[in-house]
Amino acid sequence: MGLESYFDNFARRDWQETDPDGTVRMAIVGIGGFSRNRALPAIDTADYCETSVLVTGSPDSSAEIADEFDVDTLLSYEEFLDGRATDAYDAVYIATPNATHGQYATAAAEFGKHVICEKPLETTVQDAREVIDACEDAGVTLMTAYRLQFEPSIRRTRELITDGVIGDVVQIHAGFSNPLLEHAGADTWRLDPDLAGGGVLVDLGVYPLNTIRFLLDCDPTVVTACTYSVDEAFADVDEHVAFQLEFPGAVTASCTASYNAHAASGLRAVGTDGMVSVSSPFGGVVPHDIYVECGDVGMEYRGAPSDEVIEEFDYFGYCVLTGTDPEPDGVDSLRDIVTVDSTYEAAESGVSVEIPYIR
Amino acid sequence: MGLESYFDNFARRDWQETDPDGTVRMAIVGIGGFSRNRALPAIDTADYCETSVLVTGSPDSSAEIADEFDVDTLLSYEEFLDGRATDAYDAVYIATPNATHGQYATAAAEFGKHVICEKPLETTVQDAREVIDACEDAGVTLMTAYRLQFEPSIRRTRELITDGVIGDVVQIHAGFSNPLLEHAGADTWRLDPDLAGGGVLVDLGVYPLNTIRFLLDCDPTVVTACTYSVDEAFADVDEHVAFQLEFPGAVTASCTASYNAHAASGLRAVGTDGMVSVSSPFGGVVPHDIYVECGDVGMEYRGAPSDEVIEEFDYFGYCVLTGTDPEPDGVDSLRDIVTVDSTYEAAESGVSVEIPYIR
Repeated sequence: MGLESYFDNFARRDWQETDPDGTVRMAIVGIGGFSRNRALPAIDTADYCETSVLVTGSPDSSAEIADEFDVDTLLSYEEFLDGRATDAYDAVYIATPNATHGQYATAAAEFGKHVICEKPLETTVQDAREVIDACEDAGVTLMTAYRLQFEPSIRRTRELITDGVIGDVVQIHAGFSNPLLEHAGADTWRLDPDLAGGGVLVDLGVYPLNTIRFLLDCDPTVVTACTYSVDEAFADVDEHVAFQLEFPGAVTASCTASYNAHAASGLRAVGTDGMVSVSSPFGGVVPHDIYVECGDVGMEYRGAPSDEVIEEFDYFGYCVLTGTDPEPDGVDSLRDIVTVDSTYEAAESGVSVEIPYIR
Repeated sequence: MGLESYFDNFARRDWQETDPDGTVRMAIVGIGGFSRNRALPAIDTADYCETSVLVTGSPDSSAEIADEFDVDTLLSYEEFLDGRATDAYDAVYIATPNATHGQYATAAAEFGKHVICEKPLETTVQDAREVIDACEDAGVTLMTAYRLQFEPSIRRTRELITDGVIGDVVQIHAGFSNPLLEHAGADTWRLDPDLAGGGVLVDLGVYPLNTIRFLLDCDPTVVTACTYSVDEAFADVDEHVAFQLEFPGAVTASCTASYNAHAASGLRAVGTDGMVSVSSPFGGVVPHDIYVECGDVGMEYRGAPSDEVIEEFDYFGYCVLTGTDPEPDGVDSLRDIVTVDSTYEAAESGVSVEIPYIR
């Protein structure tokens, strides 16, 4: 198949086999910046989801946003945990500080509600495992909100790699930087290691990590790393991280993330027969700009961007409506959490660390 | 000064202050592929050098190349070492297998000849130090042939970084892959660890290493690394390497090199205020394609490539004619050799290694 065929109908939903009836009514738990600016508008546009409940720490001040998105039911966190208005939603989207994901996810599962939870599922392996178990016991769908897995640029890149267009992957480089203080201010929970479960590695470094695992469809086995905190605002969490992952088959991934650098991202994979490079994959609004080389032929695709968050929520709704197991499930996040733990251990010790394989 | 001013007169020779009279007559020691295809044509075009002697293992079969470049004097290696025809040249360019650089460089210095030597200067710190000492004792110019330092794309990028256009550099990614067996065949001396002093790290990995040192104008202090040899052709040397360097000031460089992957290279530096990316910097024929971002402004320069090898030899000739100390001197290579040693130690031990600082 010709190289250009990978770019036909670029934003195609390769995961979709049917067009199910109905929509999943969502309770949005945590109305921070990402929920307001990206999730709520995306769900508003999506085919298979709608927002029916907002769960927030300040129901009064959230009335305006409820109005804007035509949401009738506003709950406090306590009301949600008490099981109020469970008839008003079928599923929850959890976008609270990381260390609180588990309690809301577990409560939702106990109410028989499906769960899409922001990454990481929780801040420790044990807490993440409890979420997975609770959802399994309740028989509800659990998806980790890895939006990148629904970004068409990443899906098309994965197809190129899976089909061997660049041969066997040999070396990958990926980085993501975003100046936290400019966007979130100095009082963000992301600077609290207990709430966040770590610093820039947990929040931004997981994008290259999870995306590379997704592209290669396998897990890293060894990591070396270093972290830095220079600016005093980052006294309690890592400000910069550089980590190098080894995958089975002599494949390496050189990754970086920074909370205190110019906003930028990039991903480049070199294989035995070619290479593929994705411009700015991680920043949330991804230009559909992929350059691929195969032997002596090079080809660039530059198309209009789409909204990966709409894709993500429609995939979740589709999975719920059709009983499909989501690909980014709970274990997907669990493996990232394990790798993050190993990466911090490698950074602290200066020694390469074998990453446990957890199912 | 505006961003675009960095790209004015892109290939300008910022190192040139005068236009000296005369040319330096060069003896080319080692007539392999790079000498034939790049060095001899470059010297033929250069303003401040000319080729007057070829030193080769097979003078008979080199007659044709001597004819092509109008060179009257052909010497065997033994004749060269015996001091034959020393009146016919002022300087030597050494492009023999790495472990033989020292004997030719030292002999040249003893004859009072200036030296430009391919990287690495030698395969061990001690042998490299002997070359440096011999040239110092003889009062001759010694330059390591780091062609990248004369590549206009790299010089312009260095100016952008030095002037703080992207703020303080935070994280760099750089990689270089080139399939050795396709280009050099299986009987190349580069597969002999004694002659080469190592594998892909020494031969290709040194391009990101030296270029990043040049861009940052400082030396790495710590390294972690992994090497792989999978294909049996690479049983004795490293086939792939991934190494992560730490520089003073919390700066990291994530580097890779491969002898058995699609030919590709890239370099990208992210700073506190912007980023700069150079397309295909290491492959020898460098497209003048630089993308720079500073705050919300992005600018791309795409100009016609020039020949960095001509630039390199003209710089050497200029240094000899004007008595200027070359920037890529012997110690520049010595520091790369020390870093390479530390990188192999890190790869073997799985432990981060402090890189000794050598003057």
